[in-house]
Amino acid sequence: MQKLPFCAPEKFREIADAFPTPFHLYNEKGIRETARRVNRAFSWTPGFREYFAIKANPNPYILSILKEEGCGVDCASMTELMLAKAVGFEGDEIMFSSNMTPGVDFEYARKLGVIINLDDLTHIEFLKKHGGIPEKVCLRYNPGGELHIGNTCMGHPWDAKFGMTRTQIFQAIRILQKEGVKRFGLHALLASNSTDEGYYPTIAKMLFRLAREAHDTIGAEFFLINLSGGVGIPYRPQQNETDLEYIAQEIRKLHGEMLEGMEGVRLASELGRYMLAPHGCLVATAIHEKHIYKEYVGLDACAVNLMRPAMYGAYHHITIVGKENMPNDHVYDVVGSLCENNDKFAVDRPLPKVEIGDLVVIHDTGAHGYSMGYNYNGKLRSAEILLKQDGSFAKIRRAESPLDYFATLDGSEYMESLIKQTDSLNLRTEF
Amino acid sequence: MQKLPFCAPEKFREIADAFPTPFHLYNEKGIRETARRVNRAFSWTPGFREYFAIKANPNPYILSILKEEGCGVDCASMTELMLAKAVGFEGDEIMFSSNMTPGVDFEYARKLGVIINLDDLTHIEFLKKHGGIPEKVCLRYNPGGELHIGNTCMGHPWDAKFGMTRTQIFQAIRILQKEGVKRFGLHALLASNSTDEGYYPTIAKMLFRLAREAHDTIGAEFFLINLSGGVGIPYRPQQNETDLEYIAQEIRKLHGEMLEGMEGVRLASELGRYMLAPHGCLVATAIHEKHIYKEYVGLDACAVNLMRPAMYGAYHHITIVGKENMPNDHVYDVVGSLCENNDKFAVDRPLPKVEIGDLVVIHDTGAHGYSMGYNYNGKLRSAEILLKQDGSFAKIRRAESPLDYFATLDGSEYMESLIKQTDSLNLRTEF
Repeated sequence: MQKLPFCAPEKFREIADAFPTPFHLYNEKGIRETARRVNRAFSWTPGFREYFAIKANPNPYILSILKEEGCGVDCASMTELMLAKAVGFEGDEIMFSSNMTPGVDFEYARKLGVIINLDDLTHIEFLKKHGGIPEKVCLRYNPGGELHIGNTCMGHPWDAKFGMTRTQIFQAIRILQKEGVKRFGLHALLASNSTDEGYYPTIAKMLFRLAREAHDTIGAEFFLINLSGGVGIPYRPQQNETDLEYIAQEIRKLHGEMLEGMEGVRLASELGRYMLAPHGCLVATAIHEKHIYKEYVGLDACAVNLMRPAMYGAYHHITIVGKENMPNDHVYDVVGSLCENNDKFAVDRPLPKVEIGDLVVIHDTGAHGYSMGYNYNGKLRSAEILLKQDGSFAKIRRAESPLDYFATLDGSEYMESLIKQTDSLNLRTEF
Repeated sequence: MQKLPFCAPEKFREIADAFPTPFHLYNEKGIRETARRVNRAFSWTPGFREYFAIKANPNPYILSILKEEGCGVDCASMTELMLAKAVGFEGDEIMFSSNMTPGVDFEYARKLGVIINLDDLTHIEFLKKHGGIPEKVCLRYNPGGELHIGNTCMGHPWDAKFGMTRTQIFQAIRILQKEGVKRFGLHALLASNSTDEGYYPTIAKMLFRLAREAHDTIGAEFFLINLSGGVGIPYRPQQNETDLEYIAQEIRKLHGEMLEGMEGVRLASELGRYMLAPHGCLVATAIHEKHIYKEYVGLDACAVNLMRPAMYGAYHHITIVGKENMPNDHVYDVVGSLCENNDKFAVDRPLPKVEIGDLVVIHDTGAHGYSMGYNYNGKLRSAEILLKQDGSFAKIRRAESPLDYFATLDGSEYMESLIKQTDSLNLRTEF
């Protein structure tokens, strides 16, 4: 199956004429459509909410689109809480799912009145000291063992640092009941980027059963079951899209069977990748070719702009703009400029002949793309551009300038020279 | 063998009382000693220079110490060139070793008059357009194949994106001779962090032979042979230190045998890791413990402060301050607070019993520690502290504040709220 970017060659050229590459480009239309699809698929369960995981894409303009579509956000740190507040999210629209949490983060989360998702039994005492125990608390569950769906091992929860054991969940509920907690939530994440349609129902079944038991045996009242994330997207052209409607209906059946009589439990998801990954791409320019023991195409982007291939060996599809229908009769390593041999967007990738100046689109960077950026080799992170529904486009984050890279040296004796050089090279950037 | 940090428990406590953890701490004394050791080991060859790879540690205060010890710097990007200039490095004290290089970077390198290390044959035409061809040019060699030392495969040069083939090196010299280049350099990097004492002499032999041949057959005159980096350090307690003096003497023999009559060729190294890694450590505090399917210690640092374990599965030794002589009778995963299961400084590590509040020292972060930092989950990069020779200490980089993290949103409608929140939380940082 041909995998094409979300915008036409002419539009890519128009945007790249207006803003220098590399940049991440996001598609408002696609973001809204996916948000509506998720909300529609779960519309059978009142009060359902998708809590978009900010870590996947911490741009406030993106978050604001999701807010308009009725989504909430999932935060993992102080700055993510700050972003959520700046965009206008409030109270129950925000989940705070952190681990090994600093005290000040809990204090701010409590101040904002968000839903706290407790990662560990020891966090009860800690939260008591840092902000206090709220009336509603969500608990993160880790079932241990291996996660099997059919004959496939999908993950190793026993090896993950997140969540509490079954025994600890019951312990936590009892302790928290004494602390005055009235209603509970449950949360678990057992796999990442799973395109198996059995994954999400498996999580749901596990959490429904646990809630049922805690409800029936120790009288725990639940306000929330958060299925978390893990639903994947087809990064590769031969992969199929996940059938979200089917998944939602499977969960609906389980819900009917298992949660009867437990009114007021709302369902939630945290589909960071599913919500955003396909609706972003990294747009770069081929600036070099190299012919040694392999054939290389060198881009003006590098792992600083997209770390997933370097860190995880992740596949990201690549389209050469204007050459969508040409045969893939060349094989390239598509690489960046880091002095680090894992800085390769693609290895042995069949592509049409690439020429210097070609626009190169790296797909599916809407989630965990910009947000995992670093500054290795002193390289700077790019701008982010939003393609709006009406076809217009606008910058929603400026590119870093050398002065951003040097900002934490701002009281030093070297700063004067660094500012002077930046200005003489005309390298300041504007929003 | 016991592996101890470079400073005593009392000193760690004194510094952690003055600056909140986490922070990277560097040891001026150790840095100077290693620089002197390297310079002494190669003092038999006139004009020898260590070009410290800035990517390993881009702090200007560190670079300035190295400058005082007679080192130069190796730059890979525009901002690294800017740093080099700000610290006062000039001309031949700077190597510019980049790949897939942006034109503006070459232009600035040429303006500063630094030594250009050309990565590819195609870069000749590119450099001609972007800054022009200088009178002296260094060429980066990639021999292809596999690198064997004895029976051990040390690396796969055929799979690396760097450098030119043998044929291309000769082609490049002929073309550049016509372009007016008078003298050449040679450079190659074939492995990373090798503690095999055969590695560096192997590189030297290979480069000496190539230089000899190019000299004898096509009359190339050489000014530089840059052995690059790759010399490792003992990250693990059971590893031995590399015998640099022995290595230097082996190279001296090869030099005498192979470069006779080629006067004026100076040797150089780029020992980023060897120079700095052991002279830095990440100082953190244990803020959480967790007992599920494994035992966890949670730190106030995370992969944002040190990515090597997450990206490469790298080993970094850990010392619990004040418990240096207690038995390692517990086994922990020592982890950070990222919502990412690879955020583990150590897995199944035997350690003394760790208590909340313990200072935890992660060794050997002087190279590729701070410099590989990112902001995933909205986490902020730490301060850097220098322990001076006289035992005093000072901040040489401030920690990031939320305003640094949000800096590239500075023209947006969300900025007012982000500034207000930062100030209400008192989170601005000062140098």
